[in-house]
Amino acid sequence: MMPAGGGEARGQALATLEVIMHGMLTEPRVAGWIEGASEQPLDPWQSANLREMARSYRQATCMPADLVERQRLATSRCEQAWRRYRAENNWQAMAPLLQEVVTLAREEAAVRADASGLSRYDALLDTYEPGMTCARLDPLFGDLKAFLPGLLDEVLARQAAGPLLTPEGSFSIEEQRQLGLEIMRTLGFDFEHGRLDVSHHPFCGGVPSDVRITTRYRNDEFLAALMGVIHETGHALYEQGLPANWRQQPVGQALSMAMHESQSLLMEMQACRSRDFLHYLTPHLQKAFAAADPASPAWQEDNLHRLFTRVKRGYIRVDADEVSYPLHVILRYELERDLMEGRMEVTEIPEAWDQRMQQYLGLSTAGNYTDGCLQDVHWPAGLFGYFPTYTLGAMTAAQLFATARTDIPELPRQLAGGNFCALLGWLRDKVHGQGKLLDYDGLMTRATGSPLQARYFRDHLQQRYLDAR
Amino acid sequence: MMPAGGGEARGQALATLEVIMHGMLTEPRVAGWIEGASEQPLDPWQSANLREMARSYRQATCMPADLVERQRLATSRCEQAWRRYRAENNWQAMAPLLQEVVTLAREEAAVRADASGLSRYDALLDTYEPGMTCARLDPLFGDLKAFLPGLLDEVLARQAAGPLLTPEGSFSIEEQRQLGLEIMRTLGFDFEHGRLDVSHHPFCGGVPSDVRITTRYRNDEFLAALMGVIHETGHALYEQGLPANWRQQPVGQALSMAMHESQSLLMEMQACRSRDFLHYLTPHLQKAFAAADPASPAWQEDNLHRLFTRVKRGYIRVDADEVSYPLHVILRYELERDLMEGRMEVTEIPEAWDQRMQQYLGLSTAGNYTDGCLQDVHWPAGLFGYFPTYTLGAMTAAQLFATARTDIPELPRQLAGGNFCALLGWLRDKVHGQGKLLDYDGLMTRATGSPLQARYFRDHLQQRYLDAR
Repeated sequence: MMPAGGGEARGQALATLEVIMHGMLTEPRVAGWIEGASEQPLDPWQSANLREMARSYRQATCMPADLVERQRLATSRCEQAWRRYRAENNWQAMAPLLQEVVTLAREEAAVRADASGLSRYDALLDTYEPGMTCARLDPLFGDLKAFLPGLLDEVLARQAAGPLLTPEGSFSIEEQRQLGLEIMRTLGFDFEHGRLDVSHHPFCGGVPSDVRITTRYRNDEFLAALMGVIHETGHALYEQGLPANWRQQPVGQALSMAMHESQSLLMEMQACRSRDFLHYLTPHLQKAFAAADPASPAWQEDNLHRLFTRVKRGYIRVDADEVSYPLHVILRYELERDLMEGRMEVTEIPEAWDQRMQQYLGLSTAGNYTDGCLQDVHWPAGLFGYFPTYTLGAMTAAQLFATARTDIPELPRQLAGGNFCALLGWLRDKVHGQGKLLDYDGLMTRATGSPLQARYFRDHLQQRYLDAR
Repeated sequence: MMPAGGGEARGQALATLEVIMHGMLTEPRVAGWIEGASEQPLDPWQSANLREMARSYRQATCMPADLVERQRLATSRCEQAWRRYRAENNWQAMAPLLQEVVTLAREEAAVRADASGLSRYDALLDTYEPGMTCARLDPLFGDLKAFLPGLLDEVLARQAAGPLLTPEGSFSIEEQRQLGLEIMRTLGFDFEHGRLDVSHHPFCGGVPSDVRITTRYRNDEFLAALMGVIHETGHALYEQGLPANWRQQPVGQALSMAMHESQSLLMEMQACRSRDFLHYLTPHLQKAFAAADPASPAWQEDNLHRLFTRVKRGYIRVDADEVSYPLHVILRYELERDLMEGRMEVTEIPEAWDQRMQQYLGLSTAGNYTDGCLQDVHWPAGLFGYFPTYTLGAMTAAQLFATARTDIPELPRQLAGGNFCALLGWLRDKVHGQGKLLDYDGLMTRATGSPLQARYFRDHLQQRYLDAR
């Protein structure tokens, strides 16, 4: 809601708060408090809370202030330049700036590796996804790589045969907003503790008692805005369901980035793109828009389901469907891991990118940096170790949803009736209300009977894209 | 924009920031810094900045923490109870709670008097209006008391003779909002650095680069919301015009509460209720509302001007017109001054209130506490010394506007054309851009050639309500 001219003062205020928080967190006496507390008798929540405090303290204190400052300068310069050079397809100009950021990220990785005893890339991974390592990722991603390219070919061949009609017309923002609010209510969003607004990029922010989500609207298309609302509502439900007794304590926060993404993808990909939910949604879509023609083939459930599950080969990760998305992520994971471990240099990125794009997605990005290795802001912003969380989230969503379907036999019928109560209750119990009490595989084992596996995700894709009529 | 359930977490966050700020401000070494800086060669802005820092430091350090805490508890209890007992007209139940707040306010007054060398009430007054004292207020308010009751009688007699038609219809919120935005633009509000929103009580908040103002709407009446927007725009223009070089420094802030109120009242009462501006506004009003009938007598400039300048005797301060408003304020000033100086007790309030209401406004509040001494939240909230700033603001607005009219001979014609550029430029130079560089009378003397006087306000009322045709 902020006017454009307010950004600078807001940025300054946030930076000031950051400095004050960092100062409080890294006070030397905090180490003594943590040590003293660890000798007390603690219940499991208190003990997990202390573990998270110690983790925050370790992560905040191990980084030298001058490295943080050099990173801030280098990434802000690189991000700025990226906006221009991506548009200009100018890898030559971008490379030295990215080199600077990579050098500093390697320095950070070395510092964090020293402090934690992890390998360099694992130490970075750990800042986004506690406990996650290459040793765990490589087999998970290896499983995906083994079947995804082939499955993608099959799905594309199958979909090429079927017709697809695009619902056309002008969809007013107010119509789209009302539809979004209605679906948020259906999913269980608590409007006493949150809002829906508009922004350039959809996001979910705020605090558990005031969760703000946003989407963006286009007049000629409603699906992207609607799926944005559903995705962010998944994030919001997690926040609204965090353990109320531990508000403002580390253990009361969401478990990790991948678990957060699993909650948005569970709602968006597992529940709301399902045939069951489409059955509920179709008449609501027909009613929501003046431009909708309930008699037209484009507005029938069958066609809408084809629209909701359309798969396409593409260059751009953020536009990718759920079948090809993990391949975009694995490509990035392999490159950034090798960059951080010193097995690859910045100058080798474009070729490595092109080679893997051909191998995984059958597309070449030779000479096309804009839609190739310059498409994401993550590396220019200094984020190495972040990409894997997207696909860990997708796999987690599949495993959780498959288990929920077993635990709640009536779930398909409930979704077909727009009833999310049992599903939300299940998620509150298994995920939201757990905060950071357990570690990732601990939570997954309690919720689903086993640690994270790739097979639930494969089964989901197989069932939705190949087995279904 | 906050959902209802977000209030508690926001309150906690603000309280935490308050504690951190207070801790930083009252660190003992700050005294040494202030002393050291005062020995440096300083230019007038630096010197005023240091004076304001010393003032903040003095005010923050003189109050014992336990008194602040006892006040917080007592006022929060009393404010809570006030909502109920005001509605129930229950003075008996209210009196002991108010007594507690008054006792603590007297304690605060004594502490501040000791620290500043001022009398008790003056020491409280000084926290809202630096440098203001009873010795200065008594003659100013004495002047007003000398002519206002008589003038009020005259105006009422005169207006009783003229007809007044109320523009009727349903005025949609969107129509009212668009009109408000248009008038804000006309007055010079910078939408790159601010917004208009909705709230229960109109206010102006934020920071100079992001000024948020609000109003509230009714469907059956548009004048209150529109004048609310104009009033808050006056406040906002002050904030947006503060000296950019001194952002986030004490000297870069608005001079005082009274000066702030003068800027809202200058726009609302002096400029926008003038016959000149009504000439500009009338066709815009006729165009803004589907319910407006440009042919109806109710929608003619003459009638709208009567509507904009209607005077009525009433019990309630916040509903009062500009003629009777100061009498409401003087009544409260005299009572709270005597309460703080120990010349009056809480039990005597209702009788003293009734007696002055009869004397100043010709109305009795005997037995009617709801519309009498229980009508305002200020005393239950522990605010003693705040009321005078409203009327100081009204007088200041009249004196500034009279001078602007002399300095800008074309001003009436400009306002009749909806052109506020010269007026805003004058205010930027004389008031907004000065921050806290000068003291109140210093600013007034630079801007108008003399310290604050009551005669400009009297001349304004005389001219608008009695001399004009």
